[in-house]
Amino acid sequence: MKPLKIITQNDMGHIALGGAFLGTGGGGDPYIGKLMAEQAIAASGPVKVIDVDDLADDALVVPVAMMGAPTVMLEKLPRGDEALAALRALEALIGRKADAVFCIEAGGLNSTIPIAVAATAGLPIVDADGMGRAFPELQMVSMTMAGVSACPMTMADEKGNAITLNTVDNLSTEKFARSITVEMGGAGLIAIYPMTGAQAKKAALRGSMSLIHNVGRIIQEEQAANRNCADRLAKDLNGFRLFEGRVMDVNRRTTGGFARGTAIIEGLDGFAGRKIQLHFQNEFLVAQTDAGEPLAMTPDLICLLDLETGVPITTETMGYGFRVIVFGLPCDPVWRSEHGLQLVGPSYFGYEHNYVPIEDLKRSAP
Amino acid sequence: MKPLKIITQNDMGHIALGGAFLGTGGGGDPYIGKLMAEQAIAASGPVKVIDVDDLADDALVVPVAMMGAPTVMLEKLPRGDEALAALRALEALIGRKADAVFCIEAGGLNSTIPIAVAATAGLPIVDADGMGRAFPELQMVSMTMAGVSACPMTMADEKGNAITLNTVDNLSTEKFARSITVEMGGAGLIAIYPMTGAQAKKAALRGSMSLIHNVGRIIQEEQAANRNCADRLAKDLNGFRLFEGRVMDVNRRTTGGFARGTAIIEGLDGFAGRKIQLHFQNEFLVAQTDAGEPLAMTPDLICLLDLETGVPITTETMGYGFRVIVFGLPCDPVWRSEHGLQLVGPSYFGYEHNYVPIEDLKRSAP
Repeated sequence: MKPLKIITQNDMGHIALGGAFLGTGGGGDPYIGKLMAEQAIAASGPVKVIDVDDLADDALVVPVAMMGAPTVMLEKLPRGDEALAALRALEALIGRKADAVFCIEAGGLNSTIPIAVAATAGLPIVDADGMGRAFPELQMVSMTMAGVSACPMTMADEKGNAITLNTVDNLSTEKFARSITVEMGGAGLIAIYPMTGAQAKKAALRGSMSLIHNVGRIIQEEQAANRNCADRLAKDLNGFRLFEGRVMDVNRRTTGGFARGTAIIEGLDGFAGRKIQLHFQNEFLVAQTDAGEPLAMTPDLICLLDLETGVPITTETMGYGFRVIVFGLPCDPVWRSEHGLQLVGPSYFGYEHNYVPIEDLKRSAP
Repeated sequence: MKPLKIITQNDMGHIALGGAFLGTGGGGDPYIGKLMAEQAIAASGPVKVIDVDDLADDALVVPVAMMGAPTVMLEKLPRGDEALAALRALEALIGRKADAVFCIEAGGLNSTIPIAVAATAGLPIVDADGMGRAFPELQMVSMTMAGVSACPMTMADEKGNAITLNTVDNLSTEKFARSITVEMGGAGLIAIYPMTGAQAKKAALRGSMSLIHNVGRIIQEEQAANRNCADRLAKDLNGFRLFEGRVMDVNRRTTGGFARGTAIIEGLDGFAGRKIQLHFQNEFLVAQTDAGEPLAMTPDLICLLDLETGVPITTETMGYGFRVIVFGLPCDPVWRSEHGLQLVGPSYFGYEHNYVPIEDLKRSAP
């Protein structure tokens, strides 16, 4: 995989597409962030991508992100400078300028918004992230496992409100920040997990920006060649084409701030005569047969791709009749540790499965 | 009225009683704050009470308070240092030490907690407050009318969480802080409205600590002499004994974070044969006849006193069969301005009455 060294306006299409893929159905549509980044790059020039090892040990690295319901962002358009305001507030609090911007997650909206901030602030972005995919909560990052505090954390909205949190642990940060986003009208921009370069080297999941860009490029290249990207993605990323079929039913309910639900997919072609269930809570979290046999589960990645175009489909847009490929990808090994599974394993989300890696499930599948 | 110059442990009984009276049925039972203040004074010595005019113009004055549901404080006992933690966090943010503590309101719990903080921090308390009574929301203070921002504001809980707010206006401060108290388990301690001495001189409602102490002293003196305090309070404070009777019905509902409701009181003695309604939202806000003719309304003070002992009764404890005096008191003139009535007049709380001062209602009453 070719490492990404610089992000120009022309790269944003690939990045948005790759971000949608690694969003595993959630994380929001990267489209708004793509527009913001394209504008920021047009105004301030391309963004340099640096390796985490290029950071000085005492550098200040700051992840910036959107928090809240991504759907809100489509209606409550960001003014454009809230994320920068959150970064500036954090810098003022810490008493020094950031040296680089970081992505809290590698999927969805939060794979593109940090690029806009980096462009405007004239900072490089680190080729890494804290999830290697999208997850719904703030504490679900490799930084938590590396003992990095989410705080001090700053939040900003489009009205000009700014709030700073110093909580006793990262789960408390999530809880307070979540209720504040509600008062902000459903979404806010945040600067969080301020790290030294030394901490970032320990905590970062490496190569994420290159991965996102590469995935987007593959999807577009295969589209241009009238091929579905699934085969090439499977080969290049050690992924699995888990199932193909038609969405027969989608059952959604919004509880506890999550869009929870289940989709039933009826097999087509080689999968005809079989049915699977996809369980989601913002992101796709469990794929299992009708009989309850798992095909893949969190923290491994479950992505839904359009059967014709290969374009990623979110849990929000998926509907009856969609012809889809269910695609699986092993997660970063860090999530398979005991601490990792505590944070993002099936039981955290209320599923009864004990975690089994996707490769093992695939091997034992009929 | 004798000005209060120093607060010792022995003064706390009077202050708690006076605080309950000026709480006008809300603001929480000052009992917890009384215990905290008594302990703090025992450990660190008496608290000096200073006149607002004794402050240097560039002094830093900081109101501290409990925010949230006072009932929660009775079950979730404060660790004792959260209010001090909020003050210290604000000091750190501003970059200088406070020179004096201030009461955001003169009623309920928040008339006693600041004394505990002042004792522990070794600071004087200003003989003033921001309401001249209790009101339920943060923006309902004379500081708002004087153009003082509620922010930067800090919040702390007993777990060690600390949050800082910088909002676009004082109403937004209230909204954000309210939702944060919910995450804090229903109540938090705050430091808010940091002011210079010059701002405090402009904004403060003067003499509040002396008033609270004096009211408490009168209630106890009259109790000791087997007299009800209402007559003497009416004479000394230009107040009115509006009604006497028995509570026949209390209708409570909790909506939007308020304990809203109505009590029906049936007249006794000179008031026999008449009925009045008391409307409350945490505090008593409107007293009116059965036919809807107002006897008193917010921002004037409506206090409920036990007919025998003169002890103030809160909206929470009031129940069927209580024999009570409904006592009214003119509010500070600042609340009768157009801006004052916007903040705390009957229409803000959803009542249809146009504000008429209690003296005028009393004059035109049958």
